[in-house]
Amino acid sequence: MSREPLLPLHPLQYDALLRRALEEDLGLAGDLTTNAVVPAIEELTGRIVARREGCIAGLEVAARVFALLDSNVRFNARAADGDVVAAGTTLADVAGPARAILTGERVALTLLGHLSGVATVTRGIVDAIAGTRARVVCTRKTTPGLRALEKYAVRAGGGSNHRFGLDDAVLIKDNHLAIAGSVEEAVRRARAAAGHLVKIEVEVDDLAQLERALACPIDAVLLDNMAPPVLRQAVELVAGRVITEASGGITPETARAIAETGVDLLSVGWITHSAPALDVALDV
Amino acid sequence: MSREPLLPLHPLQYDALLRRALEEDLGLAGDLTTNAVVPAIEELTGRIVARREGCIAGLEVAARVFALLDSNVRFNARAADGDVVAAGTTLADVAGPARAILTGERVALTLLGHLSGVATVTRGIVDAIAGTRARVVCTRKTTPGLRALEKYAVRAGGGSNHRFGLDDAVLIKDNHLAIAGSVEEAVRRARAAAGHLVKIEVEVDDLAQLERALACPIDAVLLDNMAPPVLRQAVELVAGRVITEASGGITPETARAIAETGVDLLSVGWITHSAPALDVALDV
Amino acid sequence: MSREPLLPLHPLQYDALLRRALEEDLGLAGDLTTNAVVPAIEELTGRIVARREGCIAGLEVAARVFALLDSNVRFNARAADGDVVAAGTTLADVAGPARAILTGERVALTLLGHLSGVATVTRGIVDAIAGTRARVVCTRKTTPGLRALEKYAVRAGGGSNHRFGLDDAVLIKDNHLAIAGSVEEAVRRARAAAGHLVKIEVEVDDLAQLERALACPIDAVLLDNMAPPVLRQAVELVAGRVITEASGGITPETARAIAETGVDLLSVGWITHSAPALDVALDV
Amino acid sequence: MSREPLLPLHPLQYDALLRRALEEDLGLAGDLTTNAVVPAIEELTGRIVARREGCIAGLEVAARVFALLDSNVRFNARAADGDVVAAGTTLADVAGPARAILTGERVALTLLGHLSGVATVTRGIVDAIAGTRARVVCTRKTTPGLRALEKYAVRAGGGSNHRFGLDDAVLIKDNHLAIAGSVEEAVRRARAAAGHLVKIEVEVDDLAQLERALACPIDAVLLDNMAPPVLRQAVELVAGRVITEASGGITPETARAIAETGVDLLSVGWITHSAPALDVALDV
Amino acid sequence: MSREPLLPLHPLQYDALLRRALEEDLGLAGDLTTNAVVPAIEELTGRIVARREGCIAGLEVAARVFALLDSNVRFNARAADGDVVAAGTTLADVAGPARAILTGERVALTLLGHLSGVATVTRGIVDAIAGTRARVVCTRKTTPGLRALEKYAVRAGGGSNHRFGLDDAVLIKDNHLAIAGSVEEAVRRARAAAGHLVKIEVEVDDLAQLERALACPIDAVLLDNMAPPVLRQAVELVAGRVITEASGGITPETARAIAETGVDLLSVGWITHSAPALDVALDV
Amino acid sequence: MSREPLLPLHPLQYDALLRRALEEDLGLAGDLTTNAVVPAIEELTGRIVARREGCIAGLEVAARVFALLDSNVRFNARAADGDVVAAGTTLADVAGPARAILTGERVALTLLGHLSGVATVTRGIVDAIAGTRARVVCTRKTTPGLRALEKYAVRAGGGSNHRFGLDDAVLIKDNHLAIAGSVEEAVRRARAAAGHLVKIEVEVDDLAQLERALACPIDAVLLDNMAPPVLRQAVELVAGRVITEASGGITPETARAIAETGVDLLSVGWITHSAPALDVALDV
Repeated sequence: MSREPLLPLHPLQYDALLRRALEEDLGLAGDLTTNAVVPAIEELTGRIVARREGCIAGLEVAARVFALLDSNVRFNARAADGDVVAAGTTLADVAGPARAILTGERVALTLLGHLSGVATVTRGIVDAIAGTRARVVCTRKTTPGLRALEKYAVRAGGGSNHRFGLDDAVLIKDNHLAIAGSVEEAVRRARAAAGHLVKIEVEVDDLAQLERALACPIDAVLLDNMAPPVLRQAVELVAGRVITEASGGITPETARAIAETGVDLLSVGWITHSAPALDVALDV
Repeated sequence: MSREPLLPLHPLQYDALLRRALEEDLGLAGDLTTNAVVPAIEELTGRIVARREGCIAGLEVAARVFALLDSNVRFNARAADGDVVAAGTTLADVAGPARAILTGERVALTLLGHLSGVATVTRGIVDAIAGTRARVVCTRKTTPGLRALEKYAVRAGGGSNHRFGLDDAVLIKDNHLAIAGSVEEAVRRARAAAGHLVKIEVEVDDLAQLERALACPIDAVLLDNMAPPVLRQAVELVAGRVITEASGGITPETARAIAETGVDLLSVGWITHSAPALDVALDV
Repeated sequence: MSREPLLPLHPLQYDALLRRALEEDLGLAGDLTTNAVVPAIEELTGRIVARREGCIAGLEVAARVFALLDSNVRFNARAADGDVVAAGTTLADVAGPARAILTGERVALTLLGHLSGVATVTRGIVDAIAGTRARVVCTRKTTPGLRALEKYAVRAGGGSNHRFGLDDAVLIKDNHLAIAGSVEEAVRRARAAAGHLVKIEVEVDDLAQLERALACPIDAVLLDNMAPPVLRQAVELVAGRVITEASGGITPETARAIAETGVDLLSVGWITHSAPALDVALDV
Repeated sequence: MSREPLLPLHPLQYDALLRRALEEDLGLAGDLTTNAVVPAIEELTGRIVARREGCIAGLEVAARVFALLDSNVRFNARAADGDVVAAGTTLADVAGPARAILTGERVALTLLGHLSGVATVTRGIVDAIAGTRARVVCTRKTTPGLRALEKYAVRAGGGSNHRFGLDDAVLIKDNHLAIAGSVEEAVRRARAAAGHLVKIEVEVDDLAQLERALACPIDAVLLDNMAPPVLRQAVELVAGRVITEASGGITPETARAIAETGVDLLSVGWITHSAPALDVALDV
Repeated sequence: MSREPLLPLHPLQYDALLRRALEEDLGLAGDLTTNAVVPAIEELTGRIVARREGCIAGLEVAARVFALLDSNVRFNARAADGDVVAAGTTLADVAGPARAILTGERVALTLLGHLSGVATVTRGIVDAIAGTRARVVCTRKTTPGLRALEKYAVRAGGGSNHRFGLDDAVLIKDNHLAIAGSVEEAVRRARAAAGHLVKIEVEVDDLAQLERALACPIDAVLLDNMAPPVLRQAVELVAGRVITEASGGITPETARAIAETGVDLLSVGWITHSAPALDVALDV
Repeated sequence: MSREPLLPLHPLQYDALLRRALEEDLGLAGDLTTNAVVPAIEELTGRIVARREGCIAGLEVAARVFALLDSNVRFNARAADGDVVAAGTTLADVAGPARAILTGERVALTLLGHLSGVATVTRGIVDAIAGTRARVVCTRKTTPGLRALEKYAVRAGGGSNHRFGLDDAVLIKDNHLAIAGSVEEAVRRARAAAGHLVKIEVEVDDLAQLERALACPIDAVLLDNMAPPVLRQAVELVAGRVITEASGGITPETARAIAETGVDLLSVGWITHSAPALDVALDV
């Protein structure tokens, strides 16, 4: 199966994070063990291996960790971000100065494991809804400082990205509605203030709210915590006029039933904030 | 039961992270929805609530997020970090300028949920081994940029902290041993180079390795992936001469059997890198 | 006439810039003149005055400059961002420690003058097209480091904001088309890679290109450097199916004829990169 | 005509600015269009062209933008900073990875256009006073964060640099005089506090003030807003004892008459804060 | 004796340094001792005392350290920067939250001790040459990151500041001369490139070089490593035409003889790079 | 004599400091002298020479300064950090672009001189106690921002490192004792709060305090300001149960008598905060 090309990140988007991670780990005294035990001239050859089956994300990030420590480290990827690999698969060969490899190992593996964890759980839901028209999207519930990377990992897992920040689009939630007094007034204010290239989405909890929202000039509705039968009614009510997004309680088990209601998007917060890391290791 | 006092963090240790998190979320255009829909003079009162039972960590961090946005936000904690609370418990009252509260909500809740997630899984293992002499410790497998916070969350969950970085102590692993040629030589190099206030720990995989390690001037052994019966033999072999640390495959289910072997420390990587977030929300 | 509410900025979005500006001006030796000539206890009262008619933007930014130097400076705005004021209008009263006011004067006035300059030229075009359905939008041609502020100034001048960055939307230009080989292929690639919440705009130079673009699933067209008669034909061709944006050679003199062709947007680069500063001064 | 060598900048003086500019433009999602439409292996060859006649500044800065994105971009300058070029002149050839070139194009051109704009208006005044003994100098009215670059652009345009910051020299203005009570007292305080390597300049509005200032131990006078006949009297009064600097209302049209009064310096604020950008483009 | 007012620093000029210093000391785990032993509500009152006689500099900097940790710390200075105090003198009372005071103590005292050390050795030379017309100036040999503070400490000690950086003035040294070929050519190049507000100083080793330098349009000469009799001849040769600066081997013992030769400036590198810290302590 | 390998620093641990140092020195105008007098194509060959006998530290740091300015500078060290060299020894050859070498000279030499100064005074005490079992350790009294480098210089001088920060270990001082009420209570609190991998040290002033401290579960005692006879009694009292550290009044003259009392550690604050720089120079 040919995959869609994956929108990449540029190192300028994560280099500062990697430097901070390495500084955090090196502290003021540096890698005591490696510096004491491993001579500076020692070379080393190893393989980064996935210990469990999973969907990979972060290989270039891992390579960059080593490059920041020593430009002589050679990192040859043998898999690509987005690949689903079996347990035991070699993801990359790493060779070069032993000190740089051993010092950078933890930061490189932690990021690769974390991002692959995000990609893997994303992939699980994407696969569960294969054949439906729905797409899996992540939310703003990302780890502080890692948003660009985690959004990328979601893409690697076959998902799409929802808002990258509060500045991306208007999303009117219950608290906003309460203050505005009505959905009409909230949408009116949003339309007046925001450029008309900005999309407006409204969160609704039931079909009555949905009807009121649909009477306003909006672009999308967030159907929050609705059971599949209600979702199906909602989709019918919308009738293709706006984008429909379901959220709440979406897991690999529940996803298919939700997707089959005909919604456009399944938005899932936990794929970024609660994905367990994929177990990856460096075998020398 | 009175708890040990919890070693706190100073805001200087996380303010830069919070600023980056807010900048990441605000982008160049800011919170479009709130700024468009909510007038600047609007005030708001809400409660931060735990939706699930869990162990809390990060209340001061959450308070600080709002303070960075607007010093007029009042945040009154009704629980303390380290508390185990039931689902539905109010953790804090938040009141003040509506814009600051709505704009900061996501960053504050994401951090509170993440840190409480770490504390909760830590607590689970700590409770599982109650009554034994062992302590639960975390590793260096922390999220880049969040190490100080995640280590703090482990303490809030009743755990202890192992190394904070590569600079904390010497930990000689298999790769180091391979390069040094022998455990004796590796320890000799470490002893010679490091100050004698620095502790040296050696990773061993079996009892034969353990015996050789114990013949060296070391302070601790990392007993990696040993089954409880072997661990028990290892503890007997050590006979209190050095600190014993078990690692590998430790879960709430397996922890007690491991702790009952008499080891001093159970080190668990997944409590920082794979803890699911605790579900916390802002109810207005 | 009641104005639309103006989407504000939060100080977190420009404080780092202001600090850099002050550090740039203070250098290592600080404000030699003020520190030498003005005693620390001296107080001062002054007014910030517009020397020319213009549209104001940046009053909170100017206030913040003084606040960063000394929290005892009182800054009372007597106009609001977005106001069009006559020459000689007092914009704000400033009172407090003389040193902070004199030291911060240049940075505060430079920013206020620059942002008001952007707002003023924006306002000029907005006024020129009053009564048409078109809106004035700015581009990514902003001063490095000042994008959030300049986009804000455009809003203060009655304009709207186009893309905030390369990450906002897809804008397929001639160079992209050349590489993709055809507009169909370029749009296909964009559609496949980007989430379906991302809008796609295509730049076209003539009506033939426009027809081909309209056959693709796009959201907007950038009609580049077309004379009003051609623009009018383009708008008819589009027939409301996508957003139409005219660009190239738009000045207060030419704007009305272009707006009257029926296009949705007039995008103007020079309002951010070539606006002369509004002359503002501090009178003591 | 051989030109004076131009004092260059070192990349350390602007790299942080360039990184911020690129991060501002890339956002969290990166260059959606280029990444979606242009394959990673695609190469591209283009020329940076001046669309209008002007004086060039910033070629090394533009080259550096591409280098920060990808060290494989080749940038061959075909003009030099300080050159006055005709419309249509090729300033540089750019070749290499298409993604880096298209992603960096906007930041590179914006800076090159802005700095060349500053150089061009500077050059206009410098040319207008050719043959007189006066020099054109810029002020501290520079864009926050770009002072080093804009001061450089002034030099490229044939101008000189006045104070780089508040720490450069003492410049006693009317507000300082008002607080000190008299020019004598103000100069006395400045002389006492500042090292005697620091130059002291006093702003005067009329000849009476000038006479009082000249009785003090000062190095320069700022003759503010004086008409040429008064300036001429001022220059005669000074009789070479101190440096004379004219400011206020200096344009290419008025400059010659002012310069011919015999003043040493024409200081012009608008060449840095209100210069329109020179139109430069990348032709592929 | 009334002192010249001391040019102060603004906290914006050193806050980043103080934050880095505190972060360096807190690490990821924070102040283990204080946090474990001292309850959060504990208050404390102490005095900062000079254990040795010396000239004080850095009291506001020390106060700022505590303020950054806790705005509730009260710091009442009982001496002023520039004061020469006897051993045992109380410099400031410090009262407030015990944790902040104990955690900040080391950073505050280290800076106060270091800056007072610089002020004290400066004072020693300034006193040694009292009554002569010479001034003591420091050089660019300052601790990386502390230049603004150390230059300030020199002023507190009664000295003056020479160049703050490579950008302050032209100082042509032997290496520059060697490349230029002759002093005439070096000065010509400097004059041509630099604005005529920039002063030019030339380093000379003997009277022959001095004569050649004096034939060029320069502002100052650096008389390097000349014995007092030669210096006296040099001063006579200069005859007031340019500023004379003696450097090399200047100590409290040798300073007077050098100053009595009539030179304007004694420049001393070691007062910033080799001054022993003044012993200051916090007594509770 | 073969030396222990020296634990190195990674450039990531000091690059930010070097950049700040260079930016501090370059200012906004850059190296006026070099840029004006030295053509860009000029090459230069020089030697870094120690003008006095001393122990060297910082050669890689100095090399890095030049590399940050221009990657074409070749730096060949002819000594190694930790070497004790005679006056006149060439430490390194430097060759390459003249501008980079002359511009970087001051920052490179200042750091090399400072760190070698620290190493030299450390070496002096280490040599004075040769043959005893004691080691020389430095304290937290380091220059803000330079702790990692100064701790490294102490190692180069043959010393060891004590705490790197407040987070390294518990050190209970008199102020902590006063608040806790007793040493027993202070140690109890520390033991309860800190992980049991954290060492606890208590400062004592006399033998009575020492006896009380030894009754607590501690790892080390700081014997503050005790005369050698008392120290000897203290060592006997301790009888090897905990690490003994002497502090106060330790100089090359007094060190041997103190070391011969049998203490494990001599901790000396002044070797980092009051070491005079070693005189190093660049000869072209």
